[in-house]
Amino acid sequence: MLEKLIDAAIGREKADVVLKNGKFVNVFTGEIQEGDIAICGGKIAGFGKYEGKVEYDISGKIAVPGLIDAHVHIESSQLTPEEYAKLIMPRGTTTIIADPHEITNVCGIAGAEYIWKASQNVPLEVKVMLPSCVPATAFETSGATLSGADTEKYIGENFIYGLGEFMNYPGVIYKDPEAMKKLKAAAAAGKVVDGHAPNTSGNGLNAYIAAGIMTDHECVTPEEAAEKASKGMYVHLREGSATRNVAVNASAVTPANMRRFLLCTDDRHAADLKANGHLDNALRVAVKSGIKPADAIVIATLNSAECYRLYGKGAIAPGYDADIAVFDDLENFRCYMTFKGGKLVAKEGKALFEAEKYLPEAVRNTVNAKEVKADDFCLKLKGNRANVIRILKDNVVTERVVREVQSAGGDVVLKGTDLLKLAVVERHHKTGNIGIGLLEGYGLKGGAIGLTVAHDSHNIIVLGDNNEDMAAIVSELRRIGGGMAICAGGKIDSLSLDIAGLMSSADAETYIRQSEALLEKAYAMGVSRGFEAFMSLSFLALPVIPEIKLTDRGLFDVNRFDFIGIDA
Amino acid sequence: MLEKLIDAAIGREKADVVLKNGKFVNVFTGEIQEGDIAICGGKIAGFGKYEGKVEYDISGKIAVPGLIDAHVHIESSQLTPEEYAKLIMPRGTTTIIADPHEITNVCGIAGAEYIWKASQNVPLEVKVMLPSCVPATAFETSGATLSGADTEKYIGENFIYGLGEFMNYPGVIYKDPEAMKKLKAAAAAGKVVDGHAPNTSGNGLNAYIAAGIMTDHECVTPEEAAEKASKGMYVHLREGSATRNVAVNASAVTPANMRRFLLCTDDRHAADLKANGHLDNALRVAVKSGIKPADAIVIATLNSAECYRLYGKGAIAPGYDADIAVFDDLENFRCYMTFKGGKLVAKEGKALFEAEKYLPEAVRNTVNAKEVKADDFCLKLKGNRANVIRILKDNVVTERVVREVQSAGGDVVLKGTDLLKLAVVERHHKTGNIGIGLLEGYGLKGGAIGLTVAHDSHNIIVLGDNNEDMAAIVSELRRIGGGMAICAGGKIDSLSLDIAGLMSSADAETYIRQSEALLEKAYAMGVSRGFEAFMSLSFLALPVIPEIKLTDRGLFDVNRFDFIGIDA
Repeated sequence: MLEKLIDAAIGREKADVVLKNGKFVNVFTGEIQEGDIAICGGKIAGFGKYEGKVEYDISGKIAVPGLIDAHVHIESSQLTPEEYAKLIMPRGTTTIIADPHEITNVCGIAGAEYIWKASQNVPLEVKVMLPSCVPATAFETSGATLSGADTEKYIGENFIYGLGEFMNYPGVIYKDPEAMKKLKAAAAAGKVVDGHAPNTSGNGLNAYIAAGIMTDHECVTPEEAAEKASKGMYVHLREGSATRNVAVNASAVTPANMRRFLLCTDDRHAADLKANGHLDNALRVAVKSGIKPADAIVIATLNSAECYRLYGKGAIAPGYDADIAVFDDLENFRCYMTFKGGKLVAKEGKALFEAEKYLPEAVRNTVNAKEVKADDFCLKLKGNRANVIRILKDNVVTERVVREVQSAGGDVVLKGTDLLKLAVVERHHKTGNIGIGLLEGYGLKGGAIGLTVAHDSHNIIVLGDNNEDMAAIVSELRRIGGGMAICAGGKIDSLSLDIAGLMSSADAETYIRQSEALLEKAYAMGVSRGFEAFMSLSFLALPVIPEIKLTDRGLFDVNRFDFIGIDA
Repeated sequence: MLEKLIDAAIGREKADVVLKNGKFVNVFTGEIQEGDIAICGGKIAGFGKYEGKVEYDISGKIAVPGLIDAHVHIESSQLTPEEYAKLIMPRGTTTIIADPHEITNVCGIAGAEYIWKASQNVPLEVKVMLPSCVPATAFETSGATLSGADTEKYIGENFIYGLGEFMNYPGVIYKDPEAMKKLKAAAAAGKVVDGHAPNTSGNGLNAYIAAGIMTDHECVTPEEAAEKASKGMYVHLREGSATRNVAVNASAVTPANMRRFLLCTDDRHAADLKANGHLDNALRVAVKSGIKPADAIVIATLNSAECYRLYGKGAIAPGYDADIAVFDDLENFRCYMTFKGGKLVAKEGKALFEAEKYLPEAVRNTVNAKEVKADDFCLKLKGNRANVIRILKDNVVTERVVREVQSAGGDVVLKGTDLLKLAVVERHHKTGNIGIGLLEGYGLKGGAIGLTVAHDSHNIIVLGDNNEDMAAIVSELRRIGGGMAICAGGKIDSLSLDIAGLMSSADAETYIRQSEALLEKAYAMGVSRGFEAFMSLSFLALPVIPEIKLTDRGLFDVNRFDFIGIDA
């Protein structure tokens, strides 16, 4: 193989593949350069003048190294890794750093292993991180727990690339023994450690970094991004579906600190991937925000390769992996062709590969909730003032508000108010836990809506204006093994997320069509279009984001960092 | 330890050491920044506002990450690693990538192991490369051979950091099986591979890089440096004693390609280190040549750390090793203090550590040459025209010239000519091999001079105007176990290089004084001051540098790449 590569590089033998007549971004010089790109045995033999057994004319186009998504939860697409690959490879992405945080919270290490094994069926290169925060907090019931000892056990596994985003910032700075164990295990194994430290700075940030945490993708101001980069962190510029931070952080990037910036999508749902793309979308935003096109490419390729120690990736240069994206231009970033290991895997928006889906038992039939009756959703108050969760548009934070509430027959009366009943039903261990609260501002009328995607423990979250329909939703979600369901006028519609209750085993087209139909039903029930009807619910159970959330164990005041009663 | 570091970083506990009131170069931003630097447990806890159990006032000074010499042969200093460390750490260097090419050509793997073990006695961090070219060519007799199989055997050893400079460029591009075996072994072990590819470009260079060779320190024009960097090589800007390439290559460095440049010294002798310094000297030249001071620091620190995967080195930032050099300014680079792992190891030009020397038997008594008589140096010619080596000032290349030579009594007559007799006497395996040739332009009269440093196989090289004194030199070098000797008017003076015939076990001061005295004796015998009298001889046996050289097997025409007769 090496010998063949040398022969091809020197021009003694024809290369396997040559991209002819185009230009390419040289990430080492920041220049757009002319020259044929010769590929042999999956590697780049060289650029210059070459002939190939197969030649692709890319005149008028610009080749760049295959894009690297430096941090992504595949589960947020609600697609399998196989379908995910088919959506993103035609956009120019060839490698992702995947943190299976969601599925691992449901299925434990088997979830991470599933993501890895399923990825072996597609040309997308998926580096799987070991989630560091399973469960994310001690205030909810997750499907699985990964302790410090588990981290020690799994961090050295072949399919584990590093330690996933370390969300437990207090655990680091207060030296929580389990957190310390996890960080020491990663250090001992010589693995990379991702971070997640919104709104940290100064000496607290120093401590977090000194603990061995290398990256952050939560910056929302250029000052925050600049400080983190100046302290040696790799800073992901994130362009997700809900969290779009590239534009705001672009001004933090300077020629001198540029090498510390990466691109990532974090969470992007299927419809967004289909309609707007993946890192190609992030690149469009980056360039529109003032980052020079060649610099944007360096950020999306070489920098991620360096950060994640992906030797041989991130450049079009001799000896590098022949992972290449060919764009029409560096403004609209329309992807013409994608090569992975020298093979053409996508062209003009279409993936050129098929994959049989890997669907192991371990990630299926994960809904293990007790049967519920309508009465289980009764909410008995002592008085007539209640702590209520107020949901905000375009936001995952909530507000705590106090409202007057009437009761009758051992339950609150919702009729004539803007309030809905919200419940989180434990679904992993049949504990029967149900947390019940009140939600304001969502707008649903005449039924209930619910799903098994509820960050980060992914219990059943259900919202409604009557107990019967809420119980019907839970029954339906139990029946279909997880997914999304809606009950309007007594009629149930649902969509199965049969993998861990998080992801659909359907193909992307089918899933997108079904989920959009379901969404329209929700809007028809009065849900404000300011919300993504299902996904906005899924963050109401996440007790690390202010100000007030609901878990299967009750109402949680994030500011006080403890449970509170509903009576105010 | 991690817990203590976190406490110090957050300011909950005093740091072990704090550098107060100074500035430092932030290699991630290219800026000169103010702030205390806190150190705990050998690592940097953070910068900002800190208090320490021990505090050093560095007001008016500038701290930078400890300098990293990206490629050096310690043997060229002719000092032990212990003495070498004492010379260079006060200049701000804390880590070196050491290629023990010379001593391994004499002693085999035991030579590399010696360099590593001796380095454990000093705070200097020495990463030892496995020499890839032992012997350097097939046209000479070295002390040892490292085959492809040996490389497979040793490359995974704990004390081996990577594969040393791959000088065998033809071996790569013509796919020599042994060369292939070595490169594949390094790739399989996931180790870095250094290069050495003077004057290569285009597709040949592509092939060399595609073979997995990552670096080059032989660029002598900015065009060559720029091409190599553009193809993803790390390019060492070299400032050695004889080869000073920083100034000429400085214009190749741009903001966009800057991260691919490193600094190295390659070969620097003791007197030069003492008088002019180490990387501090290279930094002075770099800045004088137009590289911005902060960029020069990035090149000398972060870039080398990234190239050589020295995670946790190369920056002053939380969690990084507390390897720090404090300079008076970024123009003269006078080093005020050097810290290694948080410990003050040098101050105001003086090393603050002592080290007992490690002197294993394996690297001593390495002169194993047959006894010689004056007659062994007779040179019988068939005719009266001889191929003669013409030595050039300030240069390691030579010219082939043809001269009329008289013979008498079965030997050439040197009297009345500018010619001297040059001999290379095999000294490793008692083969009795003696290569004899004629040298022009050196200037010695009335005696002989010789040494056991003769690149790269390090046989005895001896030069004289009469056979008796040449034989006396060889006898003396055998007696003292290797070194340098001079015979003037029948009187012998010598200096022992008792480690492999290459390095002195004496302290640096003593060695420098002795070697300068010996040099003066050589100049007193008429050697032109344009030559470093001994070291200029040591390159006359290196059959890879044009145009005509002498090995223990005879006269070698580098252009024809074969032996030639002396008769012309």
